[in-house]
Amino acid sequence: MIAITKIGTYLPEKKISNLDLLDKFDTDEGFVRDKIGVVSRTRKQPAEKASDLCVKAFEDLMSKSELNIDDIECCLVVTQNPDFNIPHTSAIVHGALNLPENCACFDISLGCSGYVYSLSIVTAFMQANGMSQGLLFTADPYSEIIDENDKNTALIFGDGATVTLLESAKEGLVALGFEFGSKGAGYKNLINDGKLSMNGRAVFNFTAATIPVSVNQLLEKLNLTKEQIDRWYLHQGSKYIVDTITMRLGLDKDKVVFDMYEYGNTVSSSIPLLLSKDLENINAGEKIALSGFGVGLSWASAILEMN
Amino acid sequence: MIAITKIGTYLPEKKISNLDLLDKFDTDEGFVRDKIGVVSRTRKQPAEKASDLCVKAFEDLMSKSELNIDDIECCLVVTQNPDFNIPHTSAIVHGALNLPENCACFDISLGCSGYVYSLSIVTAFMQANGMSQGLLFTADPYSEIIDENDKNTALIFGDGATVTLLESAKEGLVALGFEFGSKGAGYKNLINDGKLSMNGRAVFNFTAATIPVSVNQLLEKLNLTKEQIDRWYLHQGSKYIVDTITMRLGLDKDKVVFDMYEYGNTVSSSIPLLLSKDLENINAGEKIALSGFGVGLSWASAILEMN
Repeated sequence: MIAITKIGTYLPEKKISNLDLLDKFDTDEGFVRDKIGVVSRTRKQPAEKASDLCVKAFEDLMSKSELNIDDIECCLVVTQNPDFNIPHTSAIVHGALNLPENCACFDISLGCSGYVYSLSIVTAFMQANGMSQGLLFTADPYSEIIDENDKNTALIFGDGATVTLLESAKEGLVALGFEFGSKGAGYKNLINDGKLSMNGRAVFNFTAATIPVSVNQLLEKLNLTKEQIDRWYLHQGSKYIVDTITMRLGLDKDKVVFDMYEYGNTVSSSIPLLLSKDLENINAGEKIALSGFGVGLSWASAILEMN
Repeated sequence: MIAITKIGTYLPEKKISNLDLLDKFDTDEGFVRDKIGVVSRTRKQPAEKASDLCVKAFEDLMSKSELNIDDIECCLVVTQNPDFNIPHTSAIVHGALNLPENCACFDISLGCSGYVYSLSIVTAFMQANGMSQGLLFTADPYSEIIDENDKNTALIFGDGATVTLLESAKEGLVALGFEFGSKGAGYKNLINDGKLSMNGRAVFNFTAATIPVSVNQLLEKLNLTKEQIDRWYLHQGSKYIVDTITMRLGLDKDKVVFDMYEYGNTVSSSIPLLLSKDLENINAGEKIALSGFGVGLSWASAILEMN
């Protein structure tokens, strides 16, 4: 079985405080803290590209593991803000890290559902091709596309990157099952002519209606109840959406992880950022749930178990 | 097993003749016909996007199959010329085709190796998730990025799209194995600052050296000899590169498919365009080889068998 064994992360040092923008957007601290859930947002240097963020996340992974670069057999990058459209960012990362020639590289274009989708894609791909070690990067520097004057998006997104080490290993987090969905007809609720432009109400309604159903379908498929899930890792879209899903699913609040106050919504990196902090503390036999949702409209849920 | 059962294609009606450009590029008909292998190049309408080409390929697929749209469980688009960077083009295709909500959608960013890579990605993903029917689109309208005055690229690329129907079926083409590779450090031989800019000599040398090795490794892994392969479908980069690989592998020329004179190098669509013409004529038990190579630098080879 292919398992998640380590996660490296990178959050830029530079931060922008939402508290400095309360007047500009005619709002208050209670709103940015308790509804958006973002007090400050991480911000990369303008010259840094998605591949640079990936390389920094990889340095963190190397500090946590005894990885031999020559053993890496595949390298995926999940991004919708690639360095360039051609080549794929994973090729640039491949070159920067000096990965071996027999390493398969490709990018997945997905947003906030990208990590959960890609966990399925990469584990299936590795298993089918007999690969033992792979890297799954997420990097979506939204600072490149945000309109700083758009109240609906300017206070939410932070820059960051992660890399998940996937190994054919006896110990680690292993996926028990996935559930996927798409509503392409609704993509304009988040994007207009390729530009980020969020219809907050429509996106909220879609998420609040769709995610609980997706999670329940997955639990049913796996013959599990929500009480058997030890921790919930929902995409950190905003505090309000995480709270709403928690309520609609009737979850124990203490089991639902929330942590974006100091860096914001990092798109495909939001779930692995949470997981990286907890990974060492998940006990064998414990089950966790992930659910990502956003641009597309797209969503994916997964249940994993610690072996 | 997940099998290729049908392939739909789209080539725009409009063509640009390379014979009209012989003076401009100080070349002759022998060169464009026998070295490049492209006499005319298909050209989409300027307003047509990658998703529009996908929809037209799907219309062709529908005319060849008795597909029920509500049964489609996944939809991939391989492209490096997406409609927009956000959302993924597969979401737009999902909306345009009115695919069901439980259909998983994502894009793969890869160039000329994209079809072979994605055959492995999508079949592994479908198998792991118990899916019975999926669509694999390729669409890379290079007319959007080509410099018409650059002799190294202007005479080569044509626009097109394909869609491969993948089904859990007893009859169809089934993959026996894959081989993948990457050389990210060399990506600038095809791209400079995100713009197509081909170092023809370097790309030729890379391909001529790498692809025969990749193919031979795959044959060895599968305990097959090249004589057991009934037909060879190499990426149609140019006639010269197909001829060179044929010679270096010592293949019987009659078994190597070549057909790009009338439309050009269609990037990720080149191999499925060839396959679409032959699919009905491959007999049960026959084996075929695919190999794609290009931007990244990236390559992938596969052996498939007709069930």
